[in-house]
Amino acid sequence: MKYTTIAIGDELLIGQVTDTNSGWIARHLTPYGWEAETVRLIADDAQAITAAIDEAFAKTDVVLMTGGLGPTKDDITKPALCGYFGGELVYDEVTAANVRQVMAKRNLQVNEYTRLQAMVPTSCRVIQNQVGTAPIMWFERDGKVLVSMPGVPFETEAMMEREVIPQLIKRFHRDEVIVFRTFMVMGIIESDLAMMLDEFERDMPATMHLAYLPQPGLMRLRLTGISANAEELKAQMTCAENELRSKLGKAIIADEDIPLAEIVGRKLREKDLTLSTAESCTGGNIAHVITEIAGSSDYFKGSVVSYANDVKTRVLGVLPNDLEAEGAVSQPVVEQMVRGVSQLLGTDCSVATSGVAGPGGGSAEKPVGTVWMAAKCGDRVVSQVKRLPGDRHRVIDRATTEVLLMLLRMLND
Amino acid sequence: MKYTTIAIGDELLIGQVTDTNSGWIARHLTPYGWEAETVRLIADDAQAITAAIDEAFAKTDVVLMTGGLGPTKDDITKPALCGYFGGELVYDEVTAANVRQVMAKRNLQVNEYTRLQAMVPTSCRVIQNQVGTAPIMWFERDGKVLVSMPGVPFETEAMMEREVIPQLIKRFHRDEVIVFRTFMVMGIIESDLAMMLDEFERDMPATMHLAYLPQPGLMRLRLTGISANAEELKAQMTCAENELRSKLGKAIIADEDIPLAEIVGRKLREKDLTLSTAESCTGGNIAHVITEIAGSSDYFKGSVVSYANDVKTRVLGVLPNDLEAEGAVSQPVVEQMVRGVSQLLGTDCSVATSGVAGPGGGSAEKPVGTVWMAAKCGDRVVSQVKRLPGDRHRVIDRATTEVLLMLLRMLND
Repeated sequence: MKYTTIAIGDELLIGQVTDTNSGWIARHLTPYGWEAETVRLIADDAQAITAAIDEAFAKTDVVLMTGGLGPTKDDITKPALCGYFGGELVYDEVTAANVRQVMAKRNLQVNEYTRLQAMVPTSCRVIQNQVGTAPIMWFERDGKVLVSMPGVPFETEAMMEREVIPQLIKRFHRDEVIVFRTFMVMGIIESDLAMMLDEFERDMPATMHLAYLPQPGLMRLRLTGISANAEELKAQMTCAENELRSKLGKAIIADEDIPLAEIVGRKLREKDLTLSTAESCTGGNIAHVITEIAGSSDYFKGSVVSYANDVKTRVLGVLPNDLEAEGAVSQPVVEQMVRGVSQLLGTDCSVATSGVAGPGGGSAEKPVGTVWMAAKCGDRVVSQVKRLPGDRHRVIDRATTEVLLMLLRMLND
Repeated sequence: MKYTTIAIGDELLIGQVTDTNSGWIARHLTPYGWEAETVRLIADDAQAITAAIDEAFAKTDVVLMTGGLGPTKDDITKPALCGYFGGELVYDEVTAANVRQVMAKRNLQVNEYTRLQAMVPTSCRVIQNQVGTAPIMWFERDGKVLVSMPGVPFETEAMMEREVIPQLIKRFHRDEVIVFRTFMVMGIIESDLAMMLDEFERDMPATMHLAYLPQPGLMRLRLTGISANAEELKAQMTCAENELRSKLGKAIIADEDIPLAEIVGRKLREKDLTLSTAESCTGGNIAHVITEIAGSSDYFKGSVVSYANDVKTRVLGVLPNDLEAEGAVSQPVVEQMVRGVSQLLGTDCSVATSGVAGPGGGSAEKPVGTVWMAAKCGDRVVSQVKRLPGDRHRVIDRATTEVLLMLLRMLND
């Protein structure tokens, strides 16, 4: 089943807000064999909305629309949809009761604007929003379906999951099966990987497709299979997977699309080891990406973010002489940090960073992007220095990835 | 000047990668009065590319295209563009030399695939990519311009900034001026804000527009003015700004679109105060958002992420009896954490969190989303408990925002 996603909002077009709804929708519909034909971001403008629906329906039978449904005046989606599908905007008692209930749960009063949320076109079927005040509207004409949902990701995600996806699957039927498989690959850059897989790609059956998705410090390889013959496809996928594994060996660090922190976490759990972090330039980001993973409390004990030098010496036991002589961004300091935090928090493994994230603080000897990193497992400590490209945000991100890769290599040894 | 952004990549349509290029482009072109008419995400498919260009050129004179230029085989953008604009793909020596130079800087060898990056359509003018191997291609026909850029955000951002934006501005000319002004508003929900600004919006001149952009825990108000008369517009903006300020008073915590952590940081710097964080459920995320701000080392000293209970007692001095009796997610624990970290790291101010981020760990009394938060300035400590909605990621994010708002309120008192 092909569909089109239309995201409405001036804030999307001026780049003040990034559309994440279309990606969420895609990730949750592809397992059912649904394919987004295109995603369009358009302005809060009735003409633009009408034109986009026309174009979408010309190519696909389903349009999933997000945004433009807030209680304030910059929203014009409802009248536009009413104009397109006919009928008129009426005050709906059931929707009004739902709005009151949602507001009451949040201890908020319904005012003139939230009251307006209960105005809905007579041409739609309302799916009551259980987590917000904007109603979800299901329009249907000539076998084509348009579902209008709020722009707030939390609301659209919850209501897609509970109501919209099950109703879409029930409404449409489809024979072809799409299967995805993603491999996370460490230590091989895109063009080298392409060389290694040249023959593999040439011999691949026409039902399959291989995509290279580079991430900073990592590569994701996505294998896609599309076929009406589910059994045959399954056999082809297994065969292709086995070949990829034999070609890439240990470079494959996961066979699903999961964050690096989760790959590291699984390894720690498997080996029954605990982890702590000592962070200067990464400023808590390593701890953050680790604790984003549910269940990380099984292996993660904590972190010391030693942004100021006196925290490095007083809390982590870095020697003031080394700090003085070598500077905070140096091998002895980062190695003492990694040992210090392991001892303080009583963990088997630790990682540490100290670097120049920029934009200030760089020197000829240690330019912006210079980061010393250390990883420790048991008594073994390894350290390295890297010059990472990009702005402050990117340096922090990349240093986080690099030091987790260091730890993963130690754990895989 | 109106333009269209087209982002190419199967990975965008299946939601494996989020398009951030279109937002970046918009944020950097709007100051020049350029408006995105629409943004389209399409598949790596020659027909889809051709159709999208046709549709875009029907409405706008400029198309900015990102993606589909990597060295591997899933990319078909170049042949599609060559088919659309004519000419043929040829091996370009200047581009080849640039590819070699970029690879050499990274200590990498040019292989068969990176060599192919030097193939370019004869119908385009190449802008050499200074930070990557995929050439930027400028096509022009019947007064319409299409610029094809890589999908890697880092490369497109750098090359837009250095070459593409200056060349676009030089190429096109435009009379109308667009002015934006964003206000960050604390403590008023969208519908209440709409009531407060009802009259203001009604009396606004036709050249101006007000948009409500809710963020978790915060509202952004964006005032837009578009006019051919720059002087008059400036006066109208000043007038509207003054009225907004008088209506919203202290609820306005910033008059530009900056992160909450930066607003807090400016206040700390202004008052010459230092900050530390003690984090349990937020797992380092507060320290992370604080240190994402350049120059945060002026006021931020560090953090203790006390994920395990023994770190709370041993490092932060939380009383084992209280931890035992009240549990980690409790008022006495979070208040002892905030005092403990302030003393350990020697800071004037601190914030602390302890909560149930989920999905596991909830109970009837303390369900998932329950977070105790404390903020300290000098001798004053305040604490509160909130039940935050959403999944683990959202609870962490929201707790980070809420505790920074607590601190900001104390700093504003």
